[in-house]
Amino acid sequence: MTDAPALAPSWLALPHHDGSTRYVANPTPRLGEVVEVLVRVPLGAQVTGVHVRVTPDGEQEFVPAVLLRETATDAWWAAPVPCHNPVTNYRFLLVGGPTKYAWLNGSGVHHRDVPDASDFRLVAHESPAPEWAEGAVVYQIFPDRFGRSSAADHRALPDWAIPARWDEPVQTNHPAVARQLYGGDLDGIVEHLDHLVSLGVDVIYLTPFFPARSNHRYDASSFEEVDPLLGGDAALRRLTEAAHARGMKVMGDVTTNHTGAAHEWFIAASGPDGKDRPERDYYIWEDGDYVAWLGVRSLPKLNHLNPELRHRLFESPTGVVRKWLGPVGGLDGWRVDVANMTGRWRATDVNHDVARQMRQAMVRHAPEALVVGEHFHDYTVDLPGDGWHGVMNYAGFCKPVWNWLREEGPDPMTMGAPAPLPVLDAAGVVETMRDFTSRIPWQTLVHSFNLVGSHDVTRIRTLVGGDSRLVDVAAALLFTMPSMPMLTYGDEIGMEGEFGEDGRRPMPWAESEWDLRLLEVFRRLIAARRGSDALRRGGLRWVHADGDAIVFLRETVGESALVHVARAAHGPVEVPLHLLEGVQTGRAAYGTPLDMTTVAVTLTATEPGARVWVWKPTDGGAEPRRKRES
Amino acid sequence: MTDAPALAPSWLALPHHDGSTRYVANPTPRLGEVVEVLVRVPLGAQVTGVHVRVTPDGEQEFVPAVLLRETATDAWWAAPVPCHNPVTNYRFLLVGGPTKYAWLNGSGVHHRDVPDASDFRLVAHESPAPEWAEGAVVYQIFPDRFGRSSAADHRALPDWAIPARWDEPVQTNHPAVARQLYGGDLDGIVEHLDHLVSLGVDVIYLTPFFPARSNHRYDASSFEEVDPLLGGDAALRRLTEAAHARGMKVMGDVTTNHTGAAHEWFIAASGPDGKDRPERDYYIWEDGDYVAWLGVRSLPKLNHLNPELRHRLFESPTGVVRKWLGPVGGLDGWRVDVANMTGRWRATDVNHDVARQMRQAMVRHAPEALVVGEHFHDYTVDLPGDGWHGVMNYAGFCKPVWNWLREEGPDPMTMGAPAPLPVLDAAGVVETMRDFTSRIPWQTLVHSFNLVGSHDVTRIRTLVGGDSRLVDVAAALLFTMPSMPMLTYGDEIGMEGEFGEDGRRPMPWAESEWDLRLLEVFRRLIAARRGSDALRRGGLRWVHADGDAIVFLRETVGESALVHVARAAHGPVEVPLHLLEGVQTGRAAYGTPLDMTTVAVTLTATEPGARVWVWKPTDGGAEPRRKRES
Repeated sequence: MTDAPALAPSWLALPHHDGSTRYVANPTPRLGEVVEVLVRVPLGAQVTGVHVRVTPDGEQEFVPAVLLRETATDAWWAAPVPCHNPVTNYRFLLVGGPTKYAWLNGSGVHHRDVPDASDFRLVAHESPAPEWAEGAVVYQIFPDRFGRSSAADHRALPDWAIPARWDEPVQTNHPAVARQLYGGDLDGIVEHLDHLVSLGVDVIYLTPFFPARSNHRYDASSFEEVDPLLGGDAALRRLTEAAHARGMKVMGDVTTNHTGAAHEWFIAASGPDGKDRPERDYYIWEDGDYVAWLGVRSLPKLNHLNPELRHRLFESPTGVVRKWLGPVGGLDGWRVDVANMTGRWRATDVNHDVARQMRQAMVRHAPEALVVGEHFHDYTVDLPGDGWHGVMNYAGFCKPVWNWLREEGPDPMTMGAPAPLPVLDAAGVVETMRDFTSRIPWQTLVHSFNLVGSHDVTRIRTLVGGDSRLVDVAAALLFTMPSMPMLTYGDEIGMEGEFGEDGRRPMPWAESEWDLRLLEVFRRLIAARRGSDALRRGGLRWVHADGDAIVFLRETVGESALVHVARAAHGPVEVPLHLLEGVQTGRAAYGTPLDMTTVAVTLTATEPGARVWVWKPTDGGAEPRRKRES
Repeated sequence: MTDAPALAPSWLALPHHDGSTRYVANPTPRLGEVVEVLVRVPLGAQVTGVHVRVTPDGEQEFVPAVLLRETATDAWWAAPVPCHNPVTNYRFLLVGGPTKYAWLNGSGVHHRDVPDASDFRLVAHESPAPEWAEGAVVYQIFPDRFGRSSAADHRALPDWAIPARWDEPVQTNHPAVARQLYGGDLDGIVEHLDHLVSLGVDVIYLTPFFPARSNHRYDASSFEEVDPLLGGDAALRRLTEAAHARGMKVMGDVTTNHTGAAHEWFIAASGPDGKDRPERDYYIWEDGDYVAWLGVRSLPKLNHLNPELRHRLFESPTGVVRKWLGPVGGLDGWRVDVANMTGRWRATDVNHDVARQMRQAMVRHAPEALVVGEHFHDYTVDLPGDGWHGVMNYAGFCKPVWNWLREEGPDPMTMGAPAPLPVLDAAGVVETMRDFTSRIPWQTLVHSFNLVGSHDVTRIRTLVGGDSRLVDVAAALLFTMPSMPMLTYGDEIGMEGEFGEDGRRPMPWAESEWDLRLLEVFRRLIAARRGSDALRRGGLRWVHADGDAIVFLRETVGESALVHVARAAHGPVEVPLHLLEGVQTGRAAYGTPLDMTTVAVTLTATEPGARVWVWKPTDGGAEPRRKRES
């Protein structure tokens, strides 16, 4: 902690553009469309000319920008970006000023040539993400552990199951870890929808509901029915109808990388006459044995070179992904398990092709469907924008947040890394976020699930250690940044877990077991997001990231939100008032009001926490002009 | 200029790995092979554990490294890298030391997570580049302007040509710029092969020799014969035989992106019955009109979705790329014109597929063939390693060198940029080089043409302005860095040219018109390269880059070379002697000897120039162990 005011305004003195509608006239253009983009350039930068550089067909080309208007602080330039290819990279060349030559792309301002990887990106592929998804709050439910209806009492348990009482601790040793069955079901979720409504959830994401031989059900034995242990097809219908009636969407979870070894396809493929069965080639065989996901024998890997498999998964109206979608199936989208490894094995890599086919099949059948891929690794090369609408953002959000907030100690990840995740200061955290997220289209980012934990990793409450206020900090980042923020059931009440399986505890429904302070924090943060167009749909402009403090702006044309999060007490960060035009008229959407004088906003923290300040600027600068449709 | 010694050793205090055989047991493995890689870690880094991270099928996995041995300065760790996929990304996780957690990849040491883009890369595709190519010196010849045999006096000129005497200035106005014909021919090149031998050239690269309607011949009217104006097929045979007899290879130049509008295919396609001709679909038509390269009407763009076109270009034994290769055709490889735009138009992008097919067709027919793509833009996403063996390295070499050495003034590039290329200091130059080259496989880098100019851009002698010693500096970088260094005919004698066409002047053969000092510089630098395994095949370790000085090491297991280039006088850069083990036993391979005491090497410069110091270390550390072939 230092007492000298930090130099926050330096970031605000940089030219800025992002892929939001604050700067882009049409973020989902058609191929061939010309889209106006804006860039704001602080007057102090002395820029005398702006050009947009595009790379149609792989060669650079420049389009001059025109000065649209100047405010007291910024010049707003506008340029037409022709979407000649399905993916259009663009960046700005800023001429003049002390350096004469600077590029602005998604990773910032560069005074030398840099590769295109972090260029801004317009994507003109068909079937962009549905409108309901943008900025929506997602609640992840592990069906066996969320709610248990009374019908569960009467169900016969399968041979593999180890029955558990709701208040029994989870076992994390093998094989009990996958066999312990608490009997949560889909009607149990219906019974607790009010909790989700009161929290402000927009989307329920269910981990798998197909029959399987484990409590996690990632080893489906069929894609033809909903697991009777969860209430069967009818229960899914009751759940989706009840959710829809409350204005919530429901997404399922499908394994395109593998099935269970007990799957009907695999049984056919591996049986005595397996070699004569068409299902044989649905899987990958080497030396007479099948290839399994990371060597886990219960999860035989699917062979996406087989057209019949692809048909049964994607194209058939009664196939896996279409059957459960839309008015008949009930679901509003799919999360794809192990999406990053799907279609990849040795010399074969049809990953992007599979993702593209799945999306096309889904939206042909259900135009409002969303598909989000699980990606445990570096997704930046897997998002050409025509496959999954988004990914689970471990690399560009979860891990950097953990880098900032984790308690020092043993490795909280269960990703097989042989060293604990390092603790970084805010600068390193924001650099990491930018490094990953600048490489994907903005539209992909805002349809990705930001998360601070999941059923696969350490619970955030456990990760931060003793001080639960650090969960507030994590949640504040989660619910104020561009993305579809996803929380895992129970995070909002402080549920713990050292690692994925340990965190899959049954949701306690006695409020006495809840951290009610934390619940209130989650409710207020989600309410702040739902109440602010800027938080839900705005662009992102960094203000400050150093040590214990992160400050940024979310902005639409009509609204600005300033977000200030602190992992610890820190000294003053001063932002000149005139750089936050209209800030005086704002309100505290979360946390304490801003401390401001007639010349500056002063951001300090005395403890871990966050604040969000929202206002309507009286002069926010120019607006991108959308062409009239002809 | 400053007098305080700069802190050169800091770079040498960093862990290091690169894709050279200094660190990689087999840089061209087969799929499935396990390759030992080494990493050198300075003892001062206090690293206690090393792991290699790979990403088989898109998910991270760690392989522990073992400490192989320690020298007085470094610990050498070794790890097996399984080449599970055709392209294997790998990086090192360094555990211990002050930061506990650091990644080493091609862009250096990182204390936070970074995307995989700059990871080291092993490529197990078939048909790697031929052995003759590694590190070879390439000499680019524009056939109309290099040598004119007496046979040229007797040839009738075509209708489009404007005849020019050899000593006449080039005209740069349209249409003369493309029509002025000096009558250089292939036998004219044969007559001057001794010049190339005395220079030390390994490879002659000829810009197109097919008949056309321009002096540059990038608008081929046929791929079936060598232009009779150049001496026809027989002259090409004479040239390749004469070159081979002198130990030189010969590469041609083919346009896969387009043909000339006078091409026999296009005449068929665009004639009165064009719509009924199979050639019609060899081209791209929109609204009844053909698509042309950057709108240039004389260059209709080829449609690589047409299988018959692909067959005639690549597969047919008498097709474009195979007919002219190998024992019968004579050529040793192709340079591909406008490679980066080939197969790309609007929603179509079969660029990588075309490159892959071309390479496969070439090496099936001529296993020792090399294919290098022209890439005027960011090549980092176009080099999965199974297409072109290399590219023309404008982005990662030519432009950064120009950034360092260009005279301030108007834009020397003819790439359509609306602002002059900035002048950078050495740090920015080396950062730019690393940013681009770290994103491609080492094998691709060493088979790419580094260049400081070409027939398409400003001549280096003109670019640097008044002081010809700056050409020495450019040439020193050209001939000492990993790549296939390419010079353009006449660069070695100081030929000038403000832009591409202006630089296509006839080669003067009167030595009175030559800059003989410069010629001697080129000869000595090329001789230094040819005389040093380290310069030709070694790894690359940066030592220092700041302001006016760049210092680096090239290292094989048996040899080290220290390269010091200065664009201006600069103060001392000190390198502790013990970090350059064995340096005392070295010799000056180019330039003045090193200034050393018993404790340090001191690098200073009193003027623009370069020096290369070569020695055999007595203890260079561990060597990667190549598995015995089974």
